[in-house]
Amino acid sequence: MIYLDYAASSPLYPEAAEELLRCSQEEFSNPGGLHRPAGRARALIHRSRASLARLLEVPDRSVFFCASATEANNWAIRCAAAQGPGHLLIGACEHKSVLESAKALRARGFALTLLRPDSRGFYAPDAVEAALRPDTRLLSIQAANNETGAVQDVAALSEIAARRHILYHCDAAQSFGHVSLPLHRADLVALSAHKLGGPRGAACLVVRRGLTPEPLLYGGGQELSLRAGTENTAAISAFAVAAKLACREQAAEEERIRALRLRFAELLRRAVPGVVFHESDRMLPGILNCAVPGLSGEELLMRLDLREICISTGSACASADAAPSHVLLAMGCSEEEALRSVRFSLGRLTTASEIESAAAAVAEICGGRD
Amino acid sequence: MIYLDYAASSPLYPEAAEELLRCSQEEFSNPGGLHRPAGRARALIHRSRASLARLLEVPDRSVFFCASATEANNWAIRCAAAQGPGHLLIGACEHKSVLESAKALRARGFALTLLRPDSRGFYAPDAVEAALRPDTRLLSIQAANNETGAVQDVAALSEIAARRHILYHCDAAQSFGHVSLPLHRADLVALSAHKLGGPRGAACLVVRRGLTPEPLLYGGGQELSLRAGTENTAAISAFAVAAKLACREQAAEEERIRALRLRFAELLRRAVPGVVFHESDRMLPGILNCAVPGLSGEELLMRLDLREICISTGSACASADAAPSHVLLAMGCSEEEALRSVRFSLGRLTTASEIESAAAAVAEICGGRD
Repeated sequence: MIYLDYAASSPLYPEAAEELLRCSQEEFSNPGGLHRPAGRARALIHRSRASLARLLEVPDRSVFFCASATEANNWAIRCAAAQGPGHLLIGACEHKSVLESAKALRARGFALTLLRPDSRGFYAPDAVEAALRPDTRLLSIQAANNETGAVQDVAALSEIAARRHILYHCDAAQSFGHVSLPLHRADLVALSAHKLGGPRGAACLVVRRGLTPEPLLYGGGQELSLRAGTENTAAISAFAVAAKLACREQAAEEERIRALRLRFAELLRRAVPGVVFHESDRMLPGILNCAVPGLSGEELLMRLDLREICISTGSACASADAAPSHVLLAMGCSEEEALRSVRFSLGRLTTASEIESAAAAVAEICGGRD
Repeated sequence: MIYLDYAASSPLYPEAAEELLRCSQEEFSNPGGLHRPAGRARALIHRSRASLARLLEVPDRSVFFCASATEANNWAIRCAAAQGPGHLLIGACEHKSVLESAKALRARGFALTLLRPDSRGFYAPDAVEAALRPDTRLLSIQAANNETGAVQDVAALSEIAARRHILYHCDAAQSFGHVSLPLHRADLVALSAHKLGGPRGAACLVVRRGLTPEPLLYGGGQELSLRAGTENTAAISAFAVAAKLACREQAAEEERIRALRLRFAELLRRAVPGVVFHESDRMLPGILNCAVPGLSGEELLMRLDLREICISTGSACASADAAPSHVLLAMGCSEEEALRSVRFSLGRLTTASEIESAAAAVAEICGGRD
């Protein structure tokens, strides 16, 4: 199998898998208990929180664990809602968990602007600033897009939000561990373990010092009583293990994977006349989104699948519906071109020979020799 | 180590641990994808849902996965809130995730009655019916209490709620897989994997046919778009594995564990003059809550911990605060007696010799020969 769907979910680091199993079996005590095994479980949570905080350059107490980036994004939007009705400025290319949360608030009386990026998926800071209103409560623009890999100017967006006294939420699920960005400057940051070689079931919302998030789930005193529920010790600890490895290897991997992606694009450009790349000036190393001529993205995906090559059309979270990607439409693609688009996403275990095989397969399929 | 804290969290079945690791490593594809490995992950979710539904005797589509019983309880209460302001009738001994969710609604204008049980922790159906009001939206009384093990008359409560057209929510996190109750008759049921030998990170809300829960998390189309977020394939599949084992072994284990608990109570009664048991007519097999004379529950816990015996004072989710148990207070215990109380909870791996050692240790500690 050639797995080119890392942005949908990534294989576990062996070290993270080991930690997941070890903690599940040996550190199963409820971290809320008072006996020593419970204390050990609690210490694992503390250490994982501290480790993630160090990687993010934020205080430990800024990291609030939850179960998914979707949950963290819902939580972030809810924090804005708690400030009372007003205006939300949301990137039109955000993940559905941000967009749908914002739309739910619109149904409750909030004003909502979905800001379109330029044709390369970039939000120019000037354009963002111009779209702010006096009653804007929240700016939400992701660090990097999950479909196109377009990376945003997090520093400039943080600076604008700080100057205008607006909360800035940054969904960094796709970027953290893959590219370096000044995430510590945002007010609210969502991260996910399973996008960087950690397990499903662990994620966090990172909250700027001095800001207290709204309670998300009521119950026991976990996560400062803001997100109740017995802590998922094993997944949290494996998240921290994976994040540390991803950040340690990031510089080298970023270069290696970018080179593979550029090589892949080059091979496609040569072999598939008419291929259109949806690229940006600054991109995640491993994401390549393109439209091929003559067949739908779904058809290309299916034909590659028959050759044991795994890719996506757009976001996995929305693949089940056959609608064109909202991300590509917001960038100005036609519906027709959006429906011809696919996402290849490369990662830790991707090799040059996989890239060559995948490019040859695409060429054959598009050349009709399939 | 003698682990007598099963009600706080239970050790994993080896088969569930194996499934957790296997799926984490081999079935890591995002179930929302369109390629075949993603389809396999999706099939695992479907099979797990069907398996749990069979055990519960409900339609497959009644089972909505989430990450914890706390989350499921929050979700259930939110379903009631969606019906518009009114009255909530909640058992005073409910888990904090129910009580705190209900109190959050009270802050938003709902009327709230916290119904006290009798001195043995039982809610007489007549008393429940008498506390209903014409504007009652929700009745929430758990299947079995996490601190005392008191089991409720779920059939009678379901019948009352159905007759009065009120939603009945039943938190069954502690009972499912341990005792047989007609949970399929309730409108909303919360279950948890890690209370029955499954992993942390998987739970579900079971919803009566014909009832559509409110959306809990917005985003992708997962769980019928009602609880977005990439499914935790591995934890869900391991949950189903553990639930099947727990239900298959239930009859035999219920008898074996009850006999151990009765033996334990007998040993304590003989060796610790003045011990007071918080018992009910119908109880979970493995929970024994009692107050010992002469020292606080916390002190007894700590001294047992030094002998590698793990127990709880009340709920693990509330252990961190030193307040007396709200469950025992609601049953009419004095604060002083509640603070002298501890919970022993027995489970799958508990043996007769562990029980004898634990009873001897309690006797020594209470006899001052420690």
